[in-house]
Amino acid sequence: MVRRMTTKDMLIRPDPADARLTRRVAGIDQSGAPVETSVTVERPLTLYLNGQEIVTMMTIGDYPEYLALGYLLNQNMLRRDDVVTAVDYDEEIETVVVRTERGTDFEEKLRKKTLTSGCAQGTAFGDLMERFESVTLPDAELRTSWLYRLTHAINTMPSLYLEAGAIHGCVLCERDQPLVYMEDVGRHNAVDKIAGYMFRHGIEPGDKIFYTTGRLTSEMVIKTVQMGIPILVSRSGFTAWGVELARQAGLTLVGRARGRRFLALAGEKRIVFDLDPALAEEERAAHRRKGAERDD
Amino acid sequence: MVRRMTTKDMLIRPDPADARLTRRVAGIDQSGAPVETSVTVERPLTLYLNGQEIVTMMTIGDYPEYLALGYLLNQNMLRRDDVVTAVDYDEEIETVVVRTERGTDFEEKLRKKTLTSGCAQGTAFGDLMERFESVTLPDAELRTSWLYRLTHAINTMPSLYLEAGAIHGCVLCERDQPLVYMEDVGRHNAVDKIAGYMFRHGIEPGDKIFYTTGRLTSEMVIKTVQMGIPILVSRSGFTAWGVELARQAGLTLVGRARGRRFLALAGEKRIVFDLDPALAEEERAAHRRKGAERDD
Repeated sequence: MVRRMTTKDMLIRPDPADARLTRRVAGIDQSGAPVETSVTVERPLTLYLNGQEIVTMMTIGDYPEYLALGYLLNQNMLRRDDVVTAVDYDEEIETVVVRTERGTDFEEKLRKKTLTSGCAQGTAFGDLMERFESVTLPDAELRTSWLYRLTHAINTMPSLYLEAGAIHGCVLCERDQPLVYMEDVGRHNAVDKIAGYMFRHGIEPGDKIFYTTGRLTSEMVIKTVQMGIPILVSRSGFTAWGVELARQAGLTLVGRARGRRFLALAGEKRIVFDLDPALAEEERAAHRRKGAERDD
Repeated sequence: MVRRMTTKDMLIRPDPADARLTRRVAGIDQSGAPVETSVTVERPLTLYLNGQEIVTMMTIGDYPEYLALGYLLNQNMLRRDDVVTAVDYDEEIETVVVRTERGTDFEEKLRKKTLTSGCAQGTAFGDLMERFESVTLPDAELRTSWLYRLTHAINTMPSLYLEAGAIHGCVLCERDQPLVYMEDVGRHNAVDKIAGYMFRHGIEPGDKIFYTTGRLTSEMVIKTVQMGIPILVSRSGFTAWGVELARQAGLTLVGRARGRRFLALAGEKRIVFDLDPALAEEERAAHRRKGAERDD
């Protein structure tokens, strides 16, 4: 049997009791009867870098500072050696301003995006690839015993998903321990919030494992590599380009991780098979449901 | 019992046998044994409007012309009364060029996006809201017998999802009949392909039902309203702003539609309860799985 995880050592975990993050809404069910249900709240957040408006994001709004920093890092508008002098969040006017010592080159970045990628649903790949190609991921280990404990702990942890659904989750892990668990309505906000947290607290990426509820697309692979994390795990499936990029970068890519089963399609050499899969717990239906409503 | 749907009347349905859309990839499973699996292929497609580069999208690449038209329509770069003189797709250099009779205002649109929303993960809301506020959705009917037949038919239809996973699906329906079923890796590509198909073939939106595997976010609601479709159905959950916008626009919003169950949180008046839910089929576990891997 797999040992139950405690969350006592976690740095950040979801706070489903936070009343700002969900709202009770009235409607009807399949029999026409009136019902009330919890829905996830999304709100706009406009991000400024040194006084220049950059983007308006839709977010649940729980960690605006981390989201702002992580967004700028993952868009390569902020460098890892930049000195951030202030991050000012104003809840009333829904803005967050990041100030840096160095002058930033966001104007050139924005222009480049307009010319090469417009405002796609997604991210400007030209920019992302710049950093992607310069990263060398370290040696690291993913023990299957850790993997089983992690997925079990994450699946059973109280979360906004369980409260209201329609949300994505990402978890930064070390060995068999979830460290930072972020949720958000926006596809990349959860990733960006973790990147912002790591930057703010100087967390080293080289011995970490990144878990996502979402699919292992090229974008997800590029972001993980950019963040310097050598291992990416998901309960969802793969895309062909995601696999190709992971192999190029030497990223360990584990997908369809559910209960006893998983598949590794890149970087298999980091995996240490130290637990007989037969000894791992199968997922209960209640946890499978979790993924099902996390669609987008 | 719910009558089984045939797909003989469908205009477009997924073609999981299309060899270009999936690739066999080698890896290892949880026991370390070598395995081969199918993964969805994503490829870049660069869109030009009248010679101006607009965006590079990641897509499975099955309907580049519809995707191009639908993207431009849903971004309000193409008007519904525009005369499209040509849509030229070049598979080798992965480009698609849309040519119109009228000069287009994409330069202003692109500039506006840079200033107001940058290149977000998502869409520039300022632009979307322009059209959103001008749409009046028609009266229409959603019989629960249609809803049950539709969700059953869609869940059991052969699809890329069943072949390789990691994909989204959207289906344009009329009464109890799925008409156009599009899949894609990109969150909005499936929607845009349907919008492009409707534009190209002059399909009226007023009596249609739009089904999505994804969450009922504000963006999904805005796109459906823009397309003029009065009813939006999903197997996934809601966000608070999605519900609010649907109520503003008078859109019928049905979520968590699985087996016998569903919830309506807006536009309930269009729903006609003509079938006892007890007579509808429950989802089998195999179909529930479908949603689970469609995460993103």
